[in-house]
Amino acid sequence: MMEEKMTALREKISANAEVTEAALREACPVADEDLQSLFDAETYSLLGGGKRIRPFLVNAFCEALGGDTRVSMPFACALEMIHTYSLIHDDLPCMDDDDMRRGKPSNHKVFGYATALLAGDALLTRAFLTASSNPYADRGIRSDAVRLIAEAAGDCGMIGGQIIDLAGENETLAFDKLLRLHTLKTGALIRCAARLGCLAAGYAEGTAETEAATVYAEKIGLAFQVIDDILDAVGSEEELGKSVGGDADHHKTTFLTYFDVEGARKYAEELTADAIRSIASWERSETLETLAIYLLERTY
Amino acid sequence: MMEEKMTALREKISANAEVTEAALREACPVADEDLQSLFDAETYSLLGGGKRIRPFLVNAFCEALGGDTRVSMPFACALEMIHTYSLIHDDLPCMDDDDMRRGKPSNHKVFGYATALLAGDALLTRAFLTASSNPYADRGIRSDAVRLIAEAAGDCGMIGGQIIDLAGENETLAFDKLLRLHTLKTGALIRCAARLGCLAAGYAEGTAETEAATVYAEKIGLAFQVIDDILDAVGSEEELGKSVGGDADHHKTTFLTYFDVEGARKYAEELTADAIRSIASWERSETLETLAIYLLERTY
Repeated sequence: MMEEKMTALREKISANAEVTEAALREACPVADEDLQSLFDAETYSLLGGGKRIRPFLVNAFCEALGGDTRVSMPFACALEMIHTYSLIHDDLPCMDDDDMRRGKPSNHKVFGYATALLAGDALLTRAFLTASSNPYADRGIRSDAVRLIAEAAGDCGMIGGQIIDLAGENETLAFDKLLRLHTLKTGALIRCAARLGCLAAGYAEGTAETEAATVYAEKIGLAFQVIDDILDAVGSEEELGKSVGGDADHHKTTFLTYFDVEGARKYAEELTADAIRSIASWERSETLETLAIYLLERTY
Repeated sequence: MMEEKMTALREKISANAEVTEAALREACPVADEDLQSLFDAETYSLLGGGKRIRPFLVNAFCEALGGDTRVSMPFACALEMIHTYSLIHDDLPCMDDDDMRRGKPSNHKVFGYATALLAGDALLTRAFLTASSNPYADRGIRSDAVRLIAEAAGDCGMIGGQIIDLAGENETLAFDKLLRLHTLKTGALIRCAARLGCLAAGYAEGTAETEAATVYAEKIGLAFQVIDDILDAVGSEEELGKSVGGDADHHKTTFLTYFDVEGARKYAEELTADAIRSIASWERSETLETLAIYLLERTY
């Protein structure tokens, strides 16, 4: 039974990745000789890869609440642009200095430092262009979406998490600080994805549906990071497509600073159960329930 | 007569800089111990300086068209955040590598490379938060403002100009490429300022007022850059607060590649006259007319 649901989910994720790819391609700037190196650097990192889990979440919440994914897709694309820009800037020599990303050379290794910086800036900016130009949402919804994305991506969201991360590189973070780091650095966008889906389906902030979606997203966001830490410690370089053991090399605090692998897995299971509980009463909760388990059980 | 108008304009600019400073301070993130270094880096570059010419333009267009500057001010602040982030990223070692900005150490010299990068990202993101949260504009206007700003600041606007600038560092740009460089790199935000002012006053894209405002802004934007090139060649380091002769050192193409100083000044005068002509029939055109002359005659 679970195996069937999981197969169906994998197909949904794969189908969503395909339509998201097409929508992202559509949302990219058109050819321009003077600006081609910039556009190429943007599309190099944005297109051609990944499960598109954040866009999937946006669209899945929209569908779970009876909405039309034509409305949610531009918001999903905007969020993926934000995610992509953050990876480009994260990989820069002044940040994590990573040469590889998703199994290919990182943006600045291909396009150079200056162009990679600008490509990140451009994708961040284009995210807001895409959200504010959503042809299927009325202008009020667009404005609300922009606000949600800006809050999640900004100095009190994702970027705030990056600053805590930087500050904690050479010291052990207390557990509550570690929680805050991940709640902001990766959690904020996942939370935003769920809320954008609700918004696209017509549910405003403060509704019971949006509150439940927020809880779900916060729990799976944290579980996602716990699993990441486990995989980083025990995974193989080939499976991950990035250097393994990087966290330990940098003396970073991870969930394995506070749990052994078994304890960490148990913690992630509890978070996943909480996530599922928050939306279990919804008529169309199945995809989201299966997704929570899928993310818990991933091995890459 | 002109001297009186100029004195009145200087007072207006100074008064606007003061209220803009207060509005920007209001729009900054509130204190948070974990995130303080990020917030400090943002406010270091955003607050405490400058004539705030872009916000002045936003508010002046709003007033010239009978609008309420309470509506335009959050958009003006958003644009100033965009301008500030672009300076922070421009000064980074991988870009222009400038140690000084506005007479004080550039952001990365004070806060370090990584934090400066993130402070720029944060200000760019906060610009869209500020525009989409404008309490005096309805949500439709907010969404339109976000779109205008994202277009102007993005890969087909300001960032596009920066890419042309990078590509042209070691070659002589053709005159039309030089025009495009400046139309995008500095012109796009000035054009956006005028259009945001129109929007805040209730004039949509495509109206005669917005078209005239766009022409005005394009002309003074170009004149501004021509004057910049002249001042860079003949100004003094003390007056400018930044290194003089930097353009020549980098073998950059400037308007003085194509004009002598007198010819360049004549070109700027013609552009200024065109700008004034485009809005001269407006009932309340005086401030904008004087501003065009003020920018032409500036010596810093």
